[in-house]
Amino acid sequence: MNRGLYIGRFQPYHLGHQAVLQKIVEEVDEVVVGLGSAQASHTTENPFTAGERISMIWPALRGLDATCYVIPLVDMERNAVWVAHVEAMTPKFDVVYSNNPLVVQLFVEAGMEVRRPPMYRREVYSGTAIRRMILAGDEGWRRLVPPSVASAIEEIGGIDRLKNVSRSDQD
Amino acid sequence: MNRGLYIGRFQPYHLGHQAVLQKIVEEVDEVVVGLGSAQASHTTENPFTAGERISMIWPALRGLDATCYVIPLVDMERNAVWVAHVEAMTPKFDVVYSNNPLVVQLFVEAGMEVRRPPMYRREVYSGTAIRRMILAGDEGWRRLVPPSVASAIEEIGGIDRLKNVSRSDQD
Amino acid sequence: MNRGLYIGRFQPYHLGHQAVLQKIVEEVDEVVVGLGSAQASHTTENPFTAGERISMIWPALRGLDATCYVIPLVDMERNAVWVAHVEAMTPKFDVVYSNNPLVVQLFVEAGMEVRRPPMYRREVYSGTAIRRMILAGDEGWRRLVPPSVASAIEEIGGIDRLKNVSRSDQD
Amino acid sequence: MNRGLYIGRFQPYHLGHQAVLQKIVEEVDEVVVGLGSAQASHTTENPFTAGERISMIWPALRGLDATCYVIPLVDMERNAVWVAHVEAMTPKFDVVYSNNPLVVQLFVEAGMEVRRPPMYRREVYSGTAIRRMILAGDEGWRRLVPPSVASAIEEIGGIDRLKNVSRSDQD
Amino acid sequence: MNRGLYIGRFQPYHLGHQAVLQKIVEEVDEVVVGLGSAQASHTTENPFTAGERISMIWPALRGLDATCYVIPLVDMERNAVWVAHVEAMTPKFDVVYSNNPLVVQLFVEAGMEVRRPPMYRREVYSGTAIRRMILAGDEGWRRLVPPSVASAIEEIGGIDRLKNVSRSDQD
Amino acid sequence: MNRGLYIGRFQPYHLGHQAVLQKIVEEVDEVVVGLGSAQASHTTENPFTAGERISMIWPALRGLDATCYVIPLVDMERNAVWVAHVEAMTPKFDVVYSNNPLVVQLFVEAGMEVRRPPMYRREVYSGTAIRRMILAGDEGWRRLVPPSVASAIEEIGGIDRLKNVSRSDQD
Repeated sequence: MNRGLYIGRFQPYHLGHQAVLQKIVEEVDEVVVGLGSAQASHTTENPFTAGERISMIWPALRGLDATCYVIPLVDMERNAVWVAHVEAMTPKFDVVYSNNPLVVQLFVEAGMEVRRPPMYRREVYSGTAIRRMILAGDEGWRRLVPPSVASAIEEIGGIDRLKNVSRSDQD
Repeated sequence: MNRGLYIGRFQPYHLGHQAVLQKIVEEVDEVVVGLGSAQASHTTENPFTAGERISMIWPALRGLDATCYVIPLVDMERNAVWVAHVEAMTPKFDVVYSNNPLVVQLFVEAGMEVRRPPMYRREVYSGTAIRRMILAGDEGWRRLVPPSVASAIEEIGGIDRLKNVSRSDQD
Repeated sequence: MNRGLYIGRFQPYHLGHQAVLQKIVEEVDEVVVGLGSAQASHTTENPFTAGERISMIWPALRGLDATCYVIPLVDMERNAVWVAHVEAMTPKFDVVYSNNPLVVQLFVEAGMEVRRPPMYRREVYSGTAIRRMILAGDEGWRRLVPPSVASAIEEIGGIDRLKNVSRSDQD
Repeated sequence: MNRGLYIGRFQPYHLGHQAVLQKIVEEVDEVVVGLGSAQASHTTENPFTAGERISMIWPALRGLDATCYVIPLVDMERNAVWVAHVEAMTPKFDVVYSNNPLVVQLFVEAGMEVRRPPMYRREVYSGTAIRRMILAGDEGWRRLVPPSVASAIEEIGGIDRLKNVSRSDQD
Repeated sequence: MNRGLYIGRFQPYHLGHQAVLQKIVEEVDEVVVGLGSAQASHTTENPFTAGERISMIWPALRGLDATCYVIPLVDMERNAVWVAHVEAMTPKFDVVYSNNPLVVQLFVEAGMEVRRPPMYRREVYSGTAIRRMILAGDEGWRRLVPPSVASAIEEIGGIDRLKNVSRSDQD
Repeated sequence: MNRGLYIGRFQPYHLGHQAVLQKIVEEVDEVVVGLGSAQASHTTENPFTAGERISMIWPALRGLDATCYVIPLVDMERNAVWVAHVEAMTPKFDVVYSNNPLVVQLFVEAGMEVRRPPMYRREVYSGTAIRRMILAGDEGWRRLVPPSVASAIEEIGGIDRLKNVSRSDQD
């Protein structure tokens, strides 16, 4: 049995994530999906809570031909203990899938096998791009996420929330 | 669609938990299993990491006729924000199942519906009792947990770990 | 102008506290009432939130002939920085009133003047004693607190809360 | 009895805050003044400690025709539990006054009534503008704050402190 | 070059610690002395600050024929990341010396070599015993520590401090 | 006996630090070298762990004619308690050496003597400049640090680490 770890913030989960996971399940029997910055929500970079993100991701994972664990991972302030933190929170995994240079560096220093999954049209399918489209009122973002994600964002008032938290009113 | 929350520390998951969950899935469509004190491990009260506990629970949940989410819940030091913390980390739920008086009190004050599941032979099926049997070298503990839990504890050297961390050597 | 600091947990505020404060206001022009363990609530030792305690204390302070600041003080885990923490959270004070040996020690080491107020019939007027009476169903506790405190506890369901959180249901 | 919550960082408290509070006390009987980012001090954005800010605000509140509670609120790192945190630290309130979009969003999601107070000549009366004037040596800032605030800042050496902490000397 | 790690709380450093270190420096070229619970002070179990403990230990280490690093180690609340935390705070080490079962278990699980140093008359030379003697007014404790430690404790008023913090005055 | 405190992040330790320390040891008998942001590592600003930095600094300190303590100092989030935190972690010191305006301000407010050491060709000898040279592939950085630092960075793969963590791959 072979298990892979795939970490992202999924703000929100999009078809690029889905394409990467489809590649990963061709290589491993089980996937641990680590939900990064789980404690964050209601900010421009992290509009959705961990619970909301789990609700968005879950239906999309059903289409994959593999057991998928979804584990919220709260940020540690210390990079030097982050790998130990992830290992303590997740079922044992054999290989890490990531294109994030810091994540790659930390797992490589810990002696883990790390693979860089091919990124699926990253200029289009990215959380940052999707959040910008939502903020700009560009309805095209709905075509970049699974239908279950679009309707979940709608249902929780996510569009208004993102717009509100992104307006700054310092002091 | 109806979703229930069931919270425990599962140190370890045992047949009493399994019996309660079997009752719960008769009443709801989906269950969020909240893994309390997720940050704790390597103590007499909390010998196993969150990841190890997830690995123990997962096979046992497959036998249940319901979608089950397993979510590690790190302790908050403040009871007054704990319900908000749990809600942020989990998919939305309609009813809480718990016999823990503090958990019941906090969710009742927050206006949630709380049900007290009938406890299955609690004097026998309890994490405390099982950990004591392991420490005493009483092999009977194996009959109180699902087979997958017994073999997982064996595999990670859990019996020796529990014995070692329970010996105190202050200063 | 002369300002004194008086620190307590006020779980709950009782007539012994009131008597001490009446002595203090004879010596200083203004009193800073520091609400210790402000983050704690819903435990046997600390049943009430900081906000609830402020609501209880406020009407009782009106009877005193001095300006009183009520400041919640969250516990710091480090005794060595605790005095600096208190000083940062409160208006400048000239003298500390306390009978708690640790509080006295920390302020004395910091070079502050510390006075030990005479304790008013401590065997009767103590938070611990009052919480035990409430738990035992002894209605006599109502005569040990100002009327505003008794009715505030009633109103928030404080008696049931204390009873519930004090029942332990480990595991 | 009707109680309102008004939250600000008050770095420093100025006549714009005073004007807003004067409007609020026309609508409610009591005001809880929440002092945000209470743990912060000695930075360009937050030069003054919570205790110093309380000392500045207190004399100004005496002119208002209402009971005012001043409560330091330490930042929580998690937006999703922030409303619960504020509620635990303050006497119960019926309505929130705020123009901060994040604060509004969080209280609206929690089902609270939120009112947006008319801001009093915000381009002139703002903490950011006042701190910039102090840094630039523009004495005009003194006319934007109550006299008690100006003299308190003077007394604690606040002008030099702000200038010193704003000079950066990385590494 | 061979480096060993030796961890203790050193409350206070005594001749038993010294004897163990003398054995260790026969086996390694350099010793990292990890000062556990570095954040703790002013309690019965941990009366002295990290800085005070460093001042006590330093002169005693000069007598040893090895380079000794003294590194304060703040407690992490999570056993599962503790080894990574220690490794991040200290120069690289080859072998761990400890008789603490939890420390041994954590380093063994991390794949490190752990040696159990012979304990030197543990019933006499123990921090707990020394603190008890100080509290009981038994002057014999002075013969259990290096002279530099006895005079350092004297100088900082450590005897009075320990007595004061050990008197409890709950509520 | 006279002891000075010198605080820096030492990312990495360079010949400018060395020159300052050489001046300081002319004025004091012992130096406490405080390693700031000790918890940070694997970032562009803080590439090296506290342990790695101690290993770099140690050989360089041997050349100085004074006892030097090297103490990792974890950041506190609260400036108002930072001086108390530093004092708790270090042997007692008589004078602080710093050119950092915030450090100077905090120690001056605490009533400590602060001296500003002459900075040695700061435009050349700065951690920021050295990290930029490493990132740009400019080998000249090796001449700005002691040889022991250059070889330590090499040995831990520090050049690659810095390059990897500085590439950003948000989302």
